[in-house]
Amino acid sequence: MEVTWSIYLSGEIHSDWREEISEEIIAKHLAINILFPVTNHSASDNCGVHILGKEENTFWKDHKGAKLNLIRTKTLIETADIVIVKFGEKYRQWNAAFDAGYASALNKSIIVIHSNEHQHALKEVDASASAVAKDQHQVVKILKYLLDGSL
Amino acid sequence: MEVTWSIYLSGEIHSDWREEISEEIIAKHLAINILFPVTNHSASDNCGVHILGKEENTFWKDHKGAKLNLIRTKTLIETADIVIVKFGEKYRQWNAAFDAGYASALNKSIIVIHSNEHQHALKEVDASASAVAKDQHQVVKILKYLLDGSL
Amino acid sequence: MEVTWSIYLSGEIHSDWREEISEEIIAKHLAINILFPVTNHSASDNCGVHILGKEENTFWKDHKGAKLNLIRTKTLIETADIVIVKFGEKYRQWNAAFDAGYASALNKSIIVIHSNEHQHALKEVDASASAVAKDQHQVVKILKYLLDGSL
Amino acid sequence: MEVTWSIYLSGEIHSDWREEISEEIIAKHLAINILFPVTNHSASDNCGVHILGKEENTFWKDHKGAKLNLIRTKTLIETADIVIVKFGEKYRQWNAAFDAGYASALNKSIIVIHSNEHQHALKEVDASASAVAKDQHQVVKILKYLLDGSL
Amino acid sequence: MEVTWSIYLSGEIHSDWREEISEEIIAKHLAINILFPVTNHSASDNCGVHILGKEENTFWKDHKGAKLNLIRTKTLIETADIVIVKFGEKYRQWNAAFDAGYASALNKSIIVIHSNEHQHALKEVDASASAVAKDQHQVVKILKYLLDGSL
Amino acid sequence: MEVTWSIYLSGEIHSDWREEISEEIIAKHLAINILFPVTNHSASDNCGVHILGKEENTFWKDHKGAKLNLIRTKTLIETADIVIVKFGEKYRQWNAAFDAGYASALNKSIIVIHSNEHQHALKEVDASASAVAKDQHQVVKILKYLLDGSL
Amino acid sequence: MEVTWSIYLSGEIHSDWREEISEEIIAKHLAINILFPVTNHSASDNCGVHILGKEENTFWKDHKGAKLNLIRTKTLIETADIVIVKFGEKYRQWNAAFDAGYASALNKSIIVIHSNEHQHALKEVDASASAVAKDQHQVVKILKYLLDGSL
Amino acid sequence: MEVTWSIYLSGEIHSDWREEISEEIIAKHLAINILFPVTNHSASDNCGVHILGKEENTFWKDHKGAKLNLIRTKTLIETADIVIVKFGEKYRQWNAAFDAGYASALNKSIIVIHSNEHQHALKEVDASASAVAKDQHQVVKILKYLLDGSL
Repeated sequence: MEVTWSIYLSGEIHSDWREEISEEIIAKHLAINILFPVTNHSASDNCGVHILGKEENTFWKDHKGAKLNLIRTKTLIETADIVIVKFGEKYRQWNAAFDAGYASALNKSIIVIHSNEHQHALKEVDASASAVAKDQHQVVKILKYLLDGSL
Repeated sequence: MEVTWSIYLSGEIHSDWREEISEEIIAKHLAINILFPVTNHSASDNCGVHILGKEENTFWKDHKGAKLNLIRTKTLIETADIVIVKFGEKYRQWNAAFDAGYASALNKSIIVIHSNEHQHALKEVDASASAVAKDQHQVVKILKYLLDGSL
Repeated sequence: MEVTWSIYLSGEIHSDWREEISEEIIAKHLAINILFPVTNHSASDNCGVHILGKEENTFWKDHKGAKLNLIRTKTLIETADIVIVKFGEKYRQWNAAFDAGYASALNKSIIVIHSNEHQHALKEVDASASAVAKDQHQVVKILKYLLDGSL
Repeated sequence: MEVTWSIYLSGEIHSDWREEISEEIIAKHLAINILFPVTNHSASDNCGVHILGKEENTFWKDHKGAKLNLIRTKTLIETADIVIVKFGEKYRQWNAAFDAGYASALNKSIIVIHSNEHQHALKEVDASASAVAKDQHQVVKILKYLLDGSL
Repeated sequence: MEVTWSIYLSGEIHSDWREEISEEIIAKHLAINILFPVTNHSASDNCGVHILGKEENTFWKDHKGAKLNLIRTKTLIETADIVIVKFGEKYRQWNAAFDAGYASALNKSIIVIHSNEHQHALKEVDASASAVAKDQHQVVKILKYLLDGSL
Repeated sequence: MEVTWSIYLSGEIHSDWREEISEEIIAKHLAINILFPVTNHSASDNCGVHILGKEENTFWKDHKGAKLNLIRTKTLIETADIVIVKFGEKYRQWNAAFDAGYASALNKSIIVIHSNEHQHALKEVDASASAVAKDQHQVVKILKYLLDGSL
Repeated sequence: MEVTWSIYLSGEIHSDWREEISEEIIAKHLAINILFPVTNHSASDNCGVHILGKEENTFWKDHKGAKLNLIRTKTLIETADIVIVKFGEKYRQWNAAFDAGYASALNKSIIVIHSNEHQHALKEVDASASAVAKDQHQVVKILKYLLDGSL
Repeated sequence: MEVTWSIYLSGEIHSDWREEISEEIIAKHLAINILFPVTNHSASDNCGVHILGKEENTFWKDHKGAKLNLIRTKTLIETADIVIVKFGEKYRQWNAAFDAGYASALNKSIIVIHSNEHQHALKEVDASASAVAKDQHQVVKILKYLLDGSL
């Protein structure tokens, strides 16, 4: 069976959870192509006006930037087999929930990561997911199981 | 031109914004079919265990309920021409953002309602929308314009 | 909200469960269009050779009939918003599981009815469903809740 | 003509039929990518609770596991050109019929393997298939013919 | 069950087979919407140049007309649940086979009508069909069975 | 044959060509649902800022308005069976060509109206169309032919 | 620009036109993946019964074979960017027209090859094509132009 | 992250803007597959009659050529992740707007390049785009940001 799985890591950008998953995937020699958004927070916020010119109004500044970021998000979610969405503690992360909805309508498999604290508030997202994990380790265990069937 | 437009009103369920929009639509005689989720908060939270049997674990209680609610959400978003998503002040409303992502992947037109306070946090959702309105009155004005071309 | 929901009742044809659901739906005045396969067992088995000519070989006799029945199945599942699949006690009912898989790939909402006895054997079907009901009454309660939000 | 065909081997996991097909494909030097579910029965049953945490209730234990397995099933069926489904003697194998229905709605070509005993019960599945084979050898002969046109 | 089935009658335009089917459908009170191409042979051949202006070259004359006729064909096949294709004796009727291929790719159910004489030449079309009928009476019997389950 | 055809009239908004087509359709009693964009030029240009608030920058003023107009355009083109696109003399009408491309990717039938002068410049649009008409009368003749087969 | 185009050569199997196209493509060093059906006439006719067992009835013999051949046809047409369909002199070749219709509904580009003699009978197929060629040389010239822009 | 992005460069063919973008992409070592139409104006205009035979009528000459060019356009836009459309000063370039509409309906990300002069006339195209750039340098900056997140 020669299949390279692609995963897209959506959500929280203020912790190093993507690196954790990537390192474990490499350590376990899993044939997985890891996709992710631009995670440089400052670049992500300013890309629109930096490249396409200043805006007086914050709304349009954010609009220009968010539209550029959506090119990457949309293209890579469509490429991915599994979309992994992590909800962190601090922010509202509506874009993470947006990505989950987008992936769901495309019939992608979704794995959600969140702490117990947000369980009730995330119930609709969880109900669309194939798995709800507590942390990154569980996610990599799932990926390993999906690839080689070992627990 | 005989077209009946269908709109789906997603998001906040703790205020009467859906009634406001419905009343204005009726007052203006607009041929619009108004769709919405179950807005009885208690019924929405308990439907799963009430109908299908108790659960010890909160996660599964919410899971059973959220899955029932998703039947309605999914079916009606697919029926709608325009999905209107309101983000209120109090809650995280990840399900509203999820609905917006779902609608976006289905290539539905989206109108977002939120206050200035959440502008930056909602920039990805706004960037996928056809309009960002400040309140319900603006939404009905848009609908009226779309139907009869009058401002 | 003017929506007529369509449901397709797939599976067991040796009990009167479809009539039970229909009668409850009528009694509760729910605006639901009820779709179902041909449930006359003998007609369903013989339609192919009866209309299109005899076959020596049982395989081709069944083939001709099953292909006619699939016209109805496919068309009505595509029309339905919700596919309700009942697994009974007696038969293997692979066609019920086939219908569930077909509906799942079309992104239809699925409600499964089965007894506890088959729980393990049906776990993949259940995992694709929006609800797993014990009997017809639970199904109608779900439908009522989806339509008017009342429990 | 450079085409690598992909086949997905669905169904019975209690015999070594997948190995038989794989060995014949290798022996005949056919350019076929062979895809299949996790066939370690115990791992397949326990993956959910093993990775994501224990469940008191058998239903939810099976639910968690089946959802993980569905990630692999769905992704690989979508990748496959041909879905080969074997119905064995012992079990009800509703998941095999579910996979066939899923593949059919995606317009994949299906080859079914079953003994005469189940012919009548499987008539709807057979009617959706491109071929009904008696054993693994016939399947490999079909694959060889499809690839190089030789009988 | 309130369903209005739509059928499209493709193929031979030199006999009155469409009238035969229509009359039987009316006589049997079947709720079927009957769709068909323009069957006035002369109008069908000349529509392009008649409306859009003369052409010296026969190829372009035919091209203009065939493109107009394809608007109707495409739209009505997409509307139909079942496409019924009759191959007559006299002409090559490549457009009938084209319609069958078009309908097949759209996953429509197909019923073919032809005499034994063309059985071998039509084997690929037959293999994509849900039924191969000998005449119009068989077709109407199938339709009646699909609608009310009676033989 | 009960079919109501829907047509969308895209393009030039500075002449009364839509009224001409509508009047002829009514005069000929054709069962056609006529769809069209907002044709009040001033409302069309100002809707965004009028409803959603002023903009300093012309680009964003136009952006807000164009996005509202696209809700109507997209929804109605998806509803239409035939998209009729008229290119007039005066303006560049890139939005007319955009609509034609949008309709083409959705596999809608397209009828183009333009004078000889623009024939070379419009060759790619014409090549995607089912018919290229000289004026509104030819379009209505096509519609009449499509509906009742008469020339 | 690194693109490998795929073409599927459908239709006539009694002449060596596929070899002619292949040889010219190789001679001109065009990066084209050439796909085609099984062209061994005898194998194509007998594959079904040879592999899956004898049939008394010619209809079922042909049915079994045609269904196997359709696996290859369907899969490769879906893979192809361009479907080239040649209509020869001798046979009715309904399967060639069927393939053209199938490809058309999938929005593939089609190139037809036929002599003047069949021009009127093939007008609907031609009207769905991107080009109507007189012979194989014209087809290869088109392919060369599409790849490198040279005439 | 191993992703090769594909871009299609649509629009103006009278300047060397495609070369500018290509050279910058190579200079910055971006892993981008650059797709584009035939840009030899004379070949593009004459390909139809050159390969497939002369036409008296300019309309059919252009028709034959435009249909060949559409094979390339359609295939490559469907392959592309991002469609970049440049509107120049001189010509009406309806085909550029047509490509933008085609790409939009396929849910491709679009980047438009035009000068301020055409801002109002292009507002509908801009409203469907992810970015509106002033020149080629801005486009390459966007591409670089999308690939490696650097500004």
